[in-house]
Amino acid sequence: MVLTILNAVKRVLVGRPFRNDRMAHTLLPKRIALPIFASDALSSVAYAPDEILLTLALAGVSAVTISPLVGLAVMVVLLTVVASYRQNVHAYPSGGGDYEIANENLGKFAGLTVASALLVDYVLTVAVSMSSAATYLTTAIPSLHGQQAMIATIGVVVLALVNLRGIKEAGSVFAVPTYIFMASILGMTLVGIFQAVTGQLGQAPSAAFTIVPAPGFDEGLVGLAGAFLLLRAFSSGAAALTGVEAISNGVPNFQKPKSKNAATTLLLLGIIASAMLAGIIYLANATKVHIVLDPATEFLLNGRPLPEGYIQNPAISQIAQTIFGAGSIPFYIVVAATGVILVFASNTAFNGFPVLGSILAQDGYLPRQLRTRGDRLAFSNGVLALAAGALVLILSFNADVTKLIQLYIVGVFISFTASQLGMVRHWGRELKLAKDKAVRRRMIKSRTINMIGFGMTALVLVIVLITKFEQGAWIALLAMFVLFLIMWSIRAHYDNVAKELAVDEDSSPRALPTRVHAVLLVSHVRKPVLRALAYARASRPSRLDAITVDINAEETAHTLADWEKLEIPVPLTILASPYRETVTPIMDYIKNMRRDSPRDLIVVYIPEYVVGKWWEQLVHNQTALRIKTRLHFEPGVMVASVPWQLKSSEEAKRLQDIQ
Amino acid sequence: MVLTILNAVKRVLVGRPFRNDRMAHTLLPKRIALPIFASDALSSVAYAPDEILLTLALAGVSAVTISPLVGLAVMVVLLTVVASYRQNVHAYPSGGGDYEIANENLGKFAGLTVASALLVDYVLTVAVSMSSAATYLTTAIPSLHGQQAMIATIGVVVLALVNLRGIKEAGSVFAVPTYIFMASILGMTLVGIFQAVTGQLGQAPSAAFTIVPAPGFDEGLVGLAGAFLLLRAFSSGAAALTGVEAISNGVPNFQKPKSKNAATTLLLLGIIASAMLAGIIYLANATKVHIVLDPATEFLLNGRPLPEGYIQNPAISQIAQTIFGAGSIPFYIVVAATGVILVFASNTAFNGFPVLGSILAQDGYLPRQLRTRGDRLAFSNGVLALAAGALVLILSFNADVTKLIQLYIVGVFISFTASQLGMVRHWGRELKLAKDKAVRRRMIKSRTINMIGFGMTALVLVIVLITKFEQGAWIALLAMFVLFLIMWSIRAHYDNVAKELAVDEDSSPRALPTRVHAVLLVSHVRKPVLRALAYARASRPSRLDAITVDINAEETAHTLADWEKLEIPVPLTILASPYRETVTPIMDYIKNMRRDSPRDLIVVYIPEYVVGKWWEQLVHNQTALRIKTRLHFEPGVMVASVPWQLKSSEEAKRLQDIQ
Repeated sequence: MVLTILNAVKRVLVGRPFRNDRMAHTLLPKRIALPIFASDALSSVAYAPDEILLTLALAGVSAVTISPLVGLAVMVVLLTVVASYRQNVHAYPSGGGDYEIANENLGKFAGLTVASALLVDYVLTVAVSMSSAATYLTTAIPSLHGQQAMIATIGVVVLALVNLRGIKEAGSVFAVPTYIFMASILGMTLVGIFQAVTGQLGQAPSAAFTIVPAPGFDEGLVGLAGAFLLLRAFSSGAAALTGVEAISNGVPNFQKPKSKNAATTLLLLGIIASAMLAGIIYLANATKVHIVLDPATEFLLNGRPLPEGYIQNPAISQIAQTIFGAGSIPFYIVVAATGVILVFASNTAFNGFPVLGSILAQDGYLPRQLRTRGDRLAFSNGVLALAAGALVLILSFNADVTKLIQLYIVGVFISFTASQLGMVRHWGRELKLAKDKAVRRRMIKSRTINMIGFGMTALVLVIVLITKFEQGAWIALLAMFVLFLIMWSIRAHYDNVAKELAVDEDSSPRALPTRVHAVLLVSHVRKPVLRALAYARASRPSRLDAITVDINAEETAHTLADWEKLEIPVPLTILASPYRETVTPIMDYIKNMRRDSPRDLIVVYIPEYVVGKWWEQLVHNQTALRIKTRLHFEPGVMVASVPWQLKSSEEAKRLQDIQ
Repeated sequence: MVLTILNAVKRVLVGRPFRNDRMAHTLLPKRIALPIFASDALSSVAYAPDEILLTLALAGVSAVTISPLVGLAVMVVLLTVVASYRQNVHAYPSGGGDYEIANENLGKFAGLTVASALLVDYVLTVAVSMSSAATYLTTAIPSLHGQQAMIATIGVVVLALVNLRGIKEAGSVFAVPTYIFMASILGMTLVGIFQAVTGQLGQAPSAAFTIVPAPGFDEGLVGLAGAFLLLRAFSSGAAALTGVEAISNGVPNFQKPKSKNAATTLLLLGIIASAMLAGIIYLANATKVHIVLDPATEFLLNGRPLPEGYIQNPAISQIAQTIFGAGSIPFYIVVAATGVILVFASNTAFNGFPVLGSILAQDGYLPRQLRTRGDRLAFSNGVLALAAGALVLILSFNADVTKLIQLYIVGVFISFTASQLGMVRHWGRELKLAKDKAVRRRMIKSRTINMIGFGMTALVLVIVLITKFEQGAWIALLAMFVLFLIMWSIRAHYDNVAKELAVDEDSSPRALPTRVHAVLLVSHVRKPVLRALAYARASRPSRLDAITVDINAEETAHTLADWEKLEIPVPLTILASPYRETVTPIMDYIKNMRRDSPRDLIVVYIPEYVVGKWWEQLVHNQTALRIKTRLHFEPGVMVASVPWQLKSSEEAKRLQDIQ
């Protein structure tokens, strides 16, 4: 069976399921929790500064010098969001993700909106981070330039396979490279500052280029257009905030005191991320890194366009080149650490996405069978869905980070905003119950912080929507809307079914069918039929009929002869089949039976072959399957499958059992 | 369910099944039978003469003048084969196809070889005829030139749809165009002869071109290479024989006396086909039609290559142009009639392929459920398989008739040869039994004819294999080999299963399981569960257990409370699930039960939702399906599906019922 193969493949790729109680062993100290939860947030310095620079560059060289201001604005938002989420962590020590907070405090509608936004944003995290990682790889190995989409594709596929195999216990694996990344970026910043102070800081490779402003920006950043561009630069820079919420989902994984440790880690994360962002933007300005959307048309060197084949490297790479020298060992360390951290950032999505999926399944928004978190089914389906979504994006946008960024962030800020509003409500409700003055004061303070957080994130959300809608955010919003509708429909369906099936006064658990009428389907007289006959008789029905359909006169005579030779104490009824067809005569027979005695229970015994190979399934049981499907539509009819295990099924059973 | 949609689509496309007894109404008089069975054989004059001409042209203009000789050889073979099949028709009035004759007289191995060859050749008939039809369409509408592959693809798809819908009773539809085709080709020949006699016959458009011989053929048709080329031309011309065997399959469809009428029709077919072939080749020579493989390199006009864009039309089209004038009405009639007859030729394959498939299924070489000829299942699967195969060939070879011809015919001659050898054996066996002198004399005469037929077809088969193997026949042979292996394996599998399942002395039809132990699977306490409970209790098992798996403590408590509230007289057992997984705890419970009382029958009652839409299937029953699959591997366990018809299933039931 196909299932057997799939299961065997799954066993190799996925490994065994975890026990519930194993969860307890994975409690994390802060020094491990930080790198695990930080990679997503920290990795955004690999592309966020570039997006700020190239957006501003549309208004010419002088506009680029405003980038520190934009960076400052991003930092302010970042620290505000961190402060807000520290309140979430204290209020929901069980790990209230944005979905749960919105769902609980703002209702189903808001909850599902946040869930859709988060699902889409997980997909974008993978697409953006992997595309950016591919760019860093081409920075280190220039001959790969132009192959970013392929590299990112391979990256996603490998990461998906690794996750299907299971890497839960790899916490320490995450720690080392994340710390190397932090050290290399912060170290580079310190060396850069030292060089600047001592007057040794060089100029970036792109410092000599002049920038041709886009049409309408000849005057620089002025007027409404200038303000709009500034907001656009800010929106793109806000990509630095993605992943900040990760810690709030992970509180239960912290060592005790969970909330306190999580809040401290969150604060650390905010400080480090801000410092790195500030460092990169400072160095980009100090070394005059120029980054534009399209180097061929926007750059001039001595008044003439650049020669063909100029490759624009990301800011971090240009800075490292300036400070340490191209091809130096520290340069490669910085670039490699950045690439690795981006892959890790993608990986956090591979952990978060299936977990959110199982929570949604638990709430009836996704198929129920995905709901058990411990089960690998939800996990592997989630991994596959996430990888597929990311691959579609990477291939559609040719792994172009700048284009993908336009889709990003809108989802993040939808969930930020909803979550903060939810928290404001949460504190309001708590305040009604709290009596203790000190507690009330703490709550009021938290509520104030969350209010500020809500205002700030709502403002950013509006800015992001205005500046990015046309640029691509509409695609992300459309995807969220579709996901929302699908999940809403699934839930509505489950609710309807639950209502339809609810036990009411009509349904008496004591009313039994008057009689049981058993029907045995016979094709050839072989062992499986005899077993089915034995089972049918063992169930002592009120009446037992054996029936066979006459398709081929010779075969039917043979069957009848065999039946009589065995002296079976049940008569064999032969059904005529004018169309030489199997299913319809049987259905007609059963329907007649139902008409004659509608209060009886009819049990149809079908002998079935249990086979071991997928192709055997194609050559057996097909007619049985069609009969079963049809019988299922008849009320008052129960189908009893009597399996006969063919020898070939033994290996398949073994595979099933070790599963 | 997907099945529902597919069935609805199928109903619209395919229509209702036929009754067995409707067969009797379709007995055919000779004047209808001839066009129905003749289109395949007659249509080959649309391409066979071209293949002879272009193969000979490799040795230059003078070699082309030998084409009447090659044509004569093909005619001799054609008439010999016709004479031989007239014997088949008399010996097997029940419609002994080549497969049955080979199977019965030469054994399973030969039979299956012939079957594989025929299946492959049906696919090639469609590919070659449709590609040729597309060429004729571009002859009439030159602006379509270069689009043959697309035209042929559309043709195959439309023909497949038409056949899925059913066109059984379209006998008379076939008659008119076939007669028009015969009349137009034979009429054109007469007009051409008249023009030649009166000195009015013009020169073909390609008459002025000189042909550049291929390397090694500067001397013309001499030496071994020349002989080989001659044989290759003959092999390609032998394509004219395909379809001759069609009448021998169709004897039961003739009016009485069936055999005599069929034999007469076969003779008529042979005479008409020979006359048409002779006419076309004569006219091609008289008007100096020059056809080559590659006009750009092989043609010279006044010593220089042709201007780009020369379109080489088939011989019939060039002849019609010469005799009637380009763009004249008779020209269009000839070209259109040829195109239509080629489509009809493809259609014969769409009738023959599924019938052969159902015969093979009856003999256990294909999945059993395809065996009933009356059922549309076999028919529609056959149509789809044939269309898919033809499309692969058309697209792989870009609808190039000359390339496709290289794959063709080898299969036809394999079945001709095997069939004739089978007939020789048949007469030998009959002769042993026959006493009457006149009868014996007739049999000896028949055997002699079949011997000559065997010798002739075997010789042609060897020639075809030698001259075409490298050109593409190996692909056809490989496909036959693969088909042979698949069908052989299916049969071997069925034989093994029959042996494994045969009733022996150990299998007593009276031994019953000691006790019946019923297990009811409970998830929520809803109506379906209560129905399953009622059915389980109505079957009066020796013992009845209800079990539920504890995945979520809250839900389990809820279920238990509901259960107790209803005062159900069966205790509910709660199974722990350390992995929060549903299937494994149930399997463990059942296995324990089996270990405790191995001689009991365990009946597992599973409530199932019957849904109406395919996506509902995705959100329901998935866990039940997994449990059922696992339970099937346990001996002594029977699964009873208790269906609960959701409201949404009503429309699906209605669709199933009208089916």
